[in-house]
Amino acid sequence: MSQLSLSDLNAASKADFVAALANIFEHSPWIAERIAGQRPFAGVNQLFAAMTAAVEGAAAELQLALIKAHPDLADKTQRAAGLTADSNAEQHSAGLDRLSDTEYAAFERVNNAYRAKFGIPYIVCVRRHTKDSILRDFEQRLPNDAETETRRSIAEICRIAALRLDQLVAADDRLKVHGRLSTHVLDNHSGKPAPGIAVELVELAALGESRVITRAMTNLDGRTDQPLIGGRPLPIGHYELRFRVGKYYAERGVAMSDPPFLDEIPLRFSIAEPEGHYHVPLLVTPWSYSTYRGS
Amino acid sequence: MSQLSLSDLNAASKADFVAALANIFEHSPWIAERIAGQRPFAGVNQLFAAMTAAVEGAAAELQLALIKAHPDLADKTQRAAGLTADSNAEQHSAGLDRLSDTEYAAFERVNNAYRAKFGIPYIVCVRRHTKDSILRDFEQRLPNDAETETRRSIAEICRIAALRLDQLVAADDRLKVHGRLSTHVLDNHSGKPAPGIAVELVELAALGESRVITRAMTNLDGRTDQPLIGGRPLPIGHYELRFRVGKYYAERGVAMSDPPFLDEIPLRFSIAEPEGHYHVPLLVTPWSYSTYRGS
Amino acid sequence: MSQLSLSDLNAASKADFVAALANIFEHSPWIAERIAGQRPFAGVNQLFAAMTAAVEGAAAELQLALIKAHPDLADKTQRAAGLTADSNAEQHSAGLDRLSDTEYAAFERVNNAYRAKFGIPYIVCVRRHTKDSILRDFEQRLPNDAETETRRSIAEICRIAALRLDQLVAADDRLKVHGRLSTHVLDNHSGKPAPGIAVELVELAALGESRVITRAMTNLDGRTDQPLIGGRPLPIGHYELRFRVGKYYAERGVAMSDPPFLDEIPLRFSIAEPEGHYHVPLLVTPWSYSTYRGS
Amino acid sequence: MSQLSLSDLNAASKADFVAALANIFEHSPWIAERIAGQRPFAGVNQLFAAMTAAVEGAAAELQLALIKAHPDLADKTQRAAGLTADSNAEQHSAGLDRLSDTEYAAFERVNNAYRAKFGIPYIVCVRRHTKDSILRDFEQRLPNDAETETRRSIAEICRIAALRLDQLVAADDRLKVHGRLSTHVLDNHSGKPAPGIAVELVELAALGESRVITRAMTNLDGRTDQPLIGGRPLPIGHYELRFRVGKYYAERGVAMSDPPFLDEIPLRFSIAEPEGHYHVPLLVTPWSYSTYRGS
Repeated sequence: MSQLSLSDLNAASKADFVAALANIFEHSPWIAERIAGQRPFAGVNQLFAAMTAAVEGAAAELQLALIKAHPDLADKTQRAAGLTADSNAEQHSAGLDRLSDTEYAAFERVNNAYRAKFGIPYIVCVRRHTKDSILRDFEQRLPNDAETETRRSIAEICRIAALRLDQLVAADDRLKVHGRLSTHVLDNHSGKPAPGIAVELVELAALGESRVITRAMTNLDGRTDQPLIGGRPLPIGHYELRFRVGKYYAERGVAMSDPPFLDEIPLRFSIAEPEGHYHVPLLVTPWSYSTYRGS
Repeated sequence: MSQLSLSDLNAASKADFVAALANIFEHSPWIAERIAGQRPFAGVNQLFAAMTAAVEGAAAELQLALIKAHPDLADKTQRAAGLTADSNAEQHSAGLDRLSDTEYAAFERVNNAYRAKFGIPYIVCVRRHTKDSILRDFEQRLPNDAETETRRSIAEICRIAALRLDQLVAADDRLKVHGRLSTHVLDNHSGKPAPGIAVELVELAALGESRVITRAMTNLDGRTDQPLIGGRPLPIGHYELRFRVGKYYAERGVAMSDPPFLDEIPLRFSIAEPEGHYHVPLLVTPWSYSTYRGS
Repeated sequence: MSQLSLSDLNAASKADFVAALANIFEHSPWIAERIAGQRPFAGVNQLFAAMTAAVEGAAAELQLALIKAHPDLADKTQRAAGLTADSNAEQHSAGLDRLSDTEYAAFERVNNAYRAKFGIPYIVCVRRHTKDSILRDFEQRLPNDAETETRRSIAEICRIAALRLDQLVAADDRLKVHGRLSTHVLDNHSGKPAPGIAVELVELAALGESRVITRAMTNLDGRTDQPLIGGRPLPIGHYELRFRVGKYYAERGVAMSDPPFLDEIPLRFSIAEPEGHYHVPLLVTPWSYSTYRGS
Repeated sequence: MSQLSLSDLNAASKADFVAALANIFEHSPWIAERIAGQRPFAGVNQLFAAMTAAVEGAAAELQLALIKAHPDLADKTQRAAGLTADSNAEQHSAGLDRLSDTEYAAFERVNNAYRAKFGIPYIVCVRRHTKDSILRDFEQRLPNDAETETRRSIAEICRIAALRLDQLVAADDRLKVHGRLSTHVLDNHSGKPAPGIAVELVELAALGESRVITRAMTNLDGRTDQPLIGGRPLPIGHYELRFRVGKYYAERGVAMSDPPFLDEIPLRFSIAEPEGHYHVPLLVTPWSYSTYRGS
């Protein structure tokens, strides 16, 4: 999708402005309409703040309509009937469009329980989650009262909107909606960064299958050229980084046992802050290793 | 099996001595017979050295007969026909009596290749191995020449004999045939050993299924009451130790993210020296950990 | 000093019992006298508990007399006039008999301030302290009220008594009055304990001169044959352990820079629990090291 | 000193060009003269390469004259008589203009021994050294033969020239003559960078007095705003970094012993590559710490 510049949006006719932002909040052009008169916006953060204020200041029925404009998560019937392109891409990002039967059943169960209790669809900013963390979020929110869930739904809708806005609008400033996961391999045996080590990032799944989501090779500085996850929120969930250090030392002729004491090293950790920076380095020798949450 | 004392063996009639040690070397009472006159033995190491010398000094045909007295590994027909109790227990120790079809096929393939090339059964001291390391040993030995494999077979037979002798005979000295795997959890967040942490030792399998072989809980000193593996050789192979540290810190009210950055920590390593001491400690905080081969 | 056995003390005449224990509490045979009738004691802990109970149950004037029976710390006039052998050895243990002029002045100043405020000598169990920690203790206690300081003086007197009793009486049980400081050097470059490393333990002094109090060499297990401090309380204070690792790696032909990145490694730490076990290991490669409070 | 731009040098008259670069090589304008005709230079690296080639291609007598144009190190008589401004600043950088009597005697002894053997002044690129490492360099070079020392003197002269040229000439490219020493404090107790920790960098001296050469405070990312040493070569030598971690944890109310197990942490290391990047981080909790040569 090509981006629009903020200055163009500032200069556009009201109709064009509203049309461009009609779907930042799902099926809800009225939000852009309400703030069109506040133009020009100095930056995308100011634009987003105005939209958020419009939503939070809206009448209860309007907020409820906004909530109800959202589809159920992982609902096949609704998907068949057609979602907005944004919704579709979001659900795809967490794999909600390719659930196993067991997973589908789990989602259906909680969806139904939620709708039965609150009469509204369960809404969560999917791009900040893995399937596991969505199910956990469901369970944590189900005991809430209706008012709490209304507020929470609005908050999640605003998170969704922020990500859509970030994708759509180019400006000098950026919304703080992305996180970053990086690593660094230091070879304490040679006192140097370790290049040429194959790294895999695996998303660990409690319910379904774990899957490799990034494969990379360390460069001369012992880092990967690209972040392991970047340019998007870090999905809340459980992960394992795997490093092929046995091969690295074998190629350098370092004395090791057979089989080597350390071969593939797994570092297992969880992500809790989608907008955070997680640096998970590996300090390693053929006989020892350590890791920590770095910066 | 109740043990015999070395002093009783020293004092026994020659016939009783030979009968007692007849199966230290599979179906080969002649070895005990040859050394009966060297009694008394000052210790079990001296006894074992005498038996080993008798084997190594024996004529080539006799050595060959000794080799051929051994069953094929993991052979169902031979098992059905009956193995010695020792052979049976040894093959059980590495799971060779409960192979999956795929594993069985792999073992049969290499067994046949080995017998076809050398005309003797493939012999290895099974108690020092996992299924994976046996298959690897097979592959490493298959390219050897016949003379090398004869020597190697005799060496493996002596290792088997040492373990049988260690089990059978009680003396003041011990044969050095056992290894030890231990761990220790130090909580660097509180500066104290970490008690009450659930630890699992998993044998990782390349071919078949990984399986938990030890479950333990750390005690007040952060150690397990018993070694994770002890009183036997450490099977050469790949392992993972898993520590439930998330629960440990949660119970102590330590501030953590949700989900906690570290929950279950896996330490993956290989064992290459069955008679060695492997100490694999965990130094941990809610945000970091390290391990090393200790002592 | 030769030890007395508890069984002999239990069997002795009352006069001999009292004479033997007359100086466990400085110049105060009345304490042994009061408990002589409670014999036999099952162990030295029971004996000590009885003496402590006698002191704590004594009339206020008697407690005050006991307190006043103690000399001032580091007082040259009193030392010239003669202290009990025990007092003398205790003051020697912390170097109070060989103060520099500056140190002497510091001690005199606080001694006088204490005596001026409370009318009693300042009492502390010297064997649990360094000069620095005594001066710090002085400063922390000076603001107390008289009642607190009476209780505290009695508590310190009981600690002194426990150490004297531990030295004097041999029994099946031991009083818990000793601590232990140990180290361990693990070479993570080779995956083995590091033997032959020279280790120095230095007591760091804020006021006077730092001094080496132990020199040792690591053995084949990477430990020192004897604890760095053992068989006595660990003096509260600041310490530095120094390890000559550059020489160790140079002797093994390990590739290093010139000069080596790491040569002599200092680990600086403090001791706060005189009866505790402080294990301060060094995990090291030519390019990295770590330490922690172990167990 | 204000810098000259390379383009101005390229455009200057030959006389101006030679005058500007007359002292890049001590008292030796002939070098600039020989290369003036090769202008324009595409960058400072190319300019330096041309000057170096001129020196190395010069006749032996000219090289000798260049060597002899240099003053003795730390020579008071010559300093009184006047050095070039560059020489003066260089000797100041390593403290050679403020030696103690003992140090002065040590320098004089080796200076004399060197001149007696080789008949030339001992030359070293002082900015790459500490006093200790200069004396060590002296001792390592004294056993050399004359030819080796001639080559070595020329090499050191070129290093001196590179640093002078780097200071004098501004261009799009830079000579690789600077190193960098940096640190980073990660608090593994909280899982975050540690801000507000006072850091001292001390140059450890074998002969004279150790001295603090940098004082800094860690910022929000746990780093110092400026490198501990930067914008110059790292002097070869022994260093200690000191971190006030006790205060840091005390301010955060973290439970610690009294006195705290860790208070001021010293990291001791050596620098061997003046043009390298030394990253010496501290990973710390109240009960553990580690460091390594990072990148």
